[in-house]
Amino acid sequence: MKSDIPQLMRQRQLDAIVVHGNTDTSSDLAYLCGATLENVLLLWRADADPVLYVSPIEREAAVASGYEIRLWSDYPIVMYLRKYGNRMDAEVAMLSDILRDNEVSGRVGFYGMRNQGYAWAMLTAFAAANPQIEIVGEASPTLFDLARQTKDDAELDAMKRVGEQTAEVMASVVEYIQQHEVVAGGLVRSDGSPLTIGDIKAHIRLELAMRNLDEAHENIFAQGRDAGVPHNRGQWGMQLRTGEPIIFDIFPRDKQTGYYHDITRTWFLGYAPDDLLIRWQQIKAIYDQLLSEMRVGEPCAHYQHMTCDYFEELGYPTTRLDSKTQVGYNHSLGHGVGLDVHEAPGLNHLPDNDTILQPGHVVSVEPGLYDPEAGWGLRIEDTVAFDQSGRLVNLSSFPYDPIIALKNGA
Amino acid sequence: MKSDIPQLMRQRQLDAIVVHGNTDTSSDLAYLCGATLENVLLLWRADADPVLYVSPIEREAAVASGYEIRLWSDYPIVMYLRKYGNRMDAEVAMLSDILRDNEVSGRVGFYGMRNQGYAWAMLTAFAAANPQIEIVGEASPTLFDLARQTKDDAELDAMKRVGEQTAEVMASVVEYIQQHEVVAGGLVRSDGSPLTIGDIKAHIRLELAMRNLDEAHENIFAQGRDAGVPHNRGQWGMQLRTGEPIIFDIFPRDKQTGYYHDITRTWFLGYAPDDLLIRWQQIKAIYDQLLSEMRVGEPCAHYQHMTCDYFEELGYPTTRLDSKTQVGYNHSLGHGVGLDVHEAPGLNHLPDNDTILQPGHVVSVEPGLYDPEAGWGLRIEDTVAFDQSGRLVNLSSFPYDPIIALKNGA
Repeated sequence: MKSDIPQLMRQRQLDAIVVHGNTDTSSDLAYLCGATLENVLLLWRADADPVLYVSPIEREAAVASGYEIRLWSDYPIVMYLRKYGNRMDAEVAMLSDILRDNEVSGRVGFYGMRNQGYAWAMLTAFAAANPQIEIVGEASPTLFDLARQTKDDAELDAMKRVGEQTAEVMASVVEYIQQHEVVAGGLVRSDGSPLTIGDIKAHIRLELAMRNLDEAHENIFAQGRDAGVPHNRGQWGMQLRTGEPIIFDIFPRDKQTGYYHDITRTWFLGYAPDDLLIRWQQIKAIYDQLLSEMRVGEPCAHYQHMTCDYFEELGYPTTRLDSKTQVGYNHSLGHGVGLDVHEAPGLNHLPDNDTILQPGHVVSVEPGLYDPEAGWGLRIEDTVAFDQSGRLVNLSSFPYDPIIALKNGA
Repeated sequence: MKSDIPQLMRQRQLDAIVVHGNTDTSSDLAYLCGATLENVLLLWRADADPVLYVSPIEREAAVASGYEIRLWSDYPIVMYLRKYGNRMDAEVAMLSDILRDNEVSGRVGFYGMRNQGYAWAMLTAFAAANPQIEIVGEASPTLFDLARQTKDDAELDAMKRVGEQTAEVMASVVEYIQQHEVVAGGLVRSDGSPLTIGDIKAHIRLELAMRNLDEAHENIFAQGRDAGVPHNRGQWGMQLRTGEPIIFDIFPRDKQTGYYHDITRTWFLGYAPDDLLIRWQQIKAIYDQLLSEMRVGEPCAHYQHMTCDYFEELGYPTTRLDSKTQVGYNHSLGHGVGLDVHEAPGLNHLPDNDTILQPGHVVSVEPGLYDPEAGWGLRIEDTVAFDQSGRLVNLSSFPYDPIIALKNGA
């Protein structure tokens, strides 16, 4: 939670943190600022309130952050460029001045997304010019990864709303599909032309826009063998067909709050082949077991192992047994969801994953099985939260039924 | 242009470049890959074709890049984490292995958006472990800033389309506003309730979604004193009123190609006060002059100076005279537009801006005047391109008329 940041700074013995970048590429900055701002620098001394440096033209948009606002024009870039002749030396001098004017010294953590080579060169020069400062560069999970992964009540409310609105969009997609008839195993529009995945995606776009939701990343609506490759987005020109698995994985973002939701259903239009229905039921069984067993206090890795155990017993390959397998269960069980669609904590068994499920964690749970050569992929995913009392709350409220009934059957 | 990259590498005496990150936060990666991909690393040796490392689950989405695809699973993170025990040392070892396996040595430029402190620490450790490699971290304009700022014909076509579609959206906003009546100086809906800026923004959202356009950044629809602060987004709950300046600045992105457009009109509903109309005409006059005079071969800074000269002669403050002024002409004349809404080249007079206008440049041209205390702001903006023959092509094709006629006048 945001209120954990001072404590997380103390644990790392940080005297200050500097977060610099744009809010739309640095989700840590979006988390801190709660507004869309370009080229902002947050300076937070462990023993003082944060201050936010912004462009004068953004001074009013920045008020939403609640921080004390200061203006870049107090450190005119024109002056620094004139004096130093190049961007990097100008930034080193400007940053040195800002930190000196704020009496910052000691261990300073640097965050915010910058071009990596530039960040290396600029901070190397900054370090040389500021012997009183020790630069701290954290690997994940950083202070912000940890603060962000436990959502407070306002965040959980915001995420609940995105989940509900996403369910409305999914219901509208089912309704839209069901308005169409089947000719020779393919869905057609009223004029007889094929109903395509592109039509579905266009429908989704409008339904999302009506709710001020946004697809920062294109949804997955992948049919047949395309469903067999987890991040294949689906082919826009492909006609919807009966009896083939469709993985529909949608992860919209509320444009107002910035929070994501992530949900997947596997659908068969009209009917499902028996063998795939059996595999789908296998996935649903472990899915149900996971949702009934997941609880705070347990290691995240435990549930990935549980899922691998289950699929391996059924004879499927997993990436635990063979890191290169492209069939079977070949991804992690889930990931944190928040201001990024993929964030901490991860439901994986990576050797450095010692995260214990905690109140406020919001994670996707998404077991799946794949075999692109054989023409199929199947996945079920919900986003679930653990509230402040530790109770699991499923933020995805959409039926699981894999078969979408059609007007004229199959 | 993308085809300039090998030449730009030679100019910088780079033996290779490494670009690492997500395409949605690293526009350089989006430029290179032409697809939405997470955690990709492009390795481009000056004397070989580029190779792209991707997650196995994204192997099909990555094909759109046209590069040779390699899989992260050849360098299993599990193995590195087991051996090194922490993320940073694991990445240093993995990156060292990848560069060694590709026989990379000498000067290597590092790009892609990463957490700046982590980038510093990781590349510092990488440098220590790889004495055969000299890390190069470029300040802007980087190799990619330069390649990206000259658009090729396919990019110009894509940008022309976004401009046309944006003009359609603007026309629909005018039409939508004109459907409403005025009561006591405020626009009302058919049920008598106020027509608000939020209603306009909701209308815009749908019109954009229908065209597969997206607002990565919320548009500006700022009325009255809010128009006086250039990046004030406008208040959602505020009723539209007659006779007040509205700055409508919209910068949508084509979700398919990723390219932005940027356009601003200042509107008065019903009528405009004479003094503001005169100021608007002053802006329009310099705007027309700029568009008739801008040509390739001239320094970008020249046009910012020309605009400052003009406004200063009319008695307005400018940031050239006073870097802290919040009234008058207080921003730069324009910026490059492309895969970022703000990119190179800048139409500013910063001391390091020695850019000469070239064929393929696409820039916004946006003179404006502001006085928030006095309750107004005015701006006109189009996005213009210089085609391969150097001819200026205005990508924004929307009328400038500042007055929107209403059904029942004012």
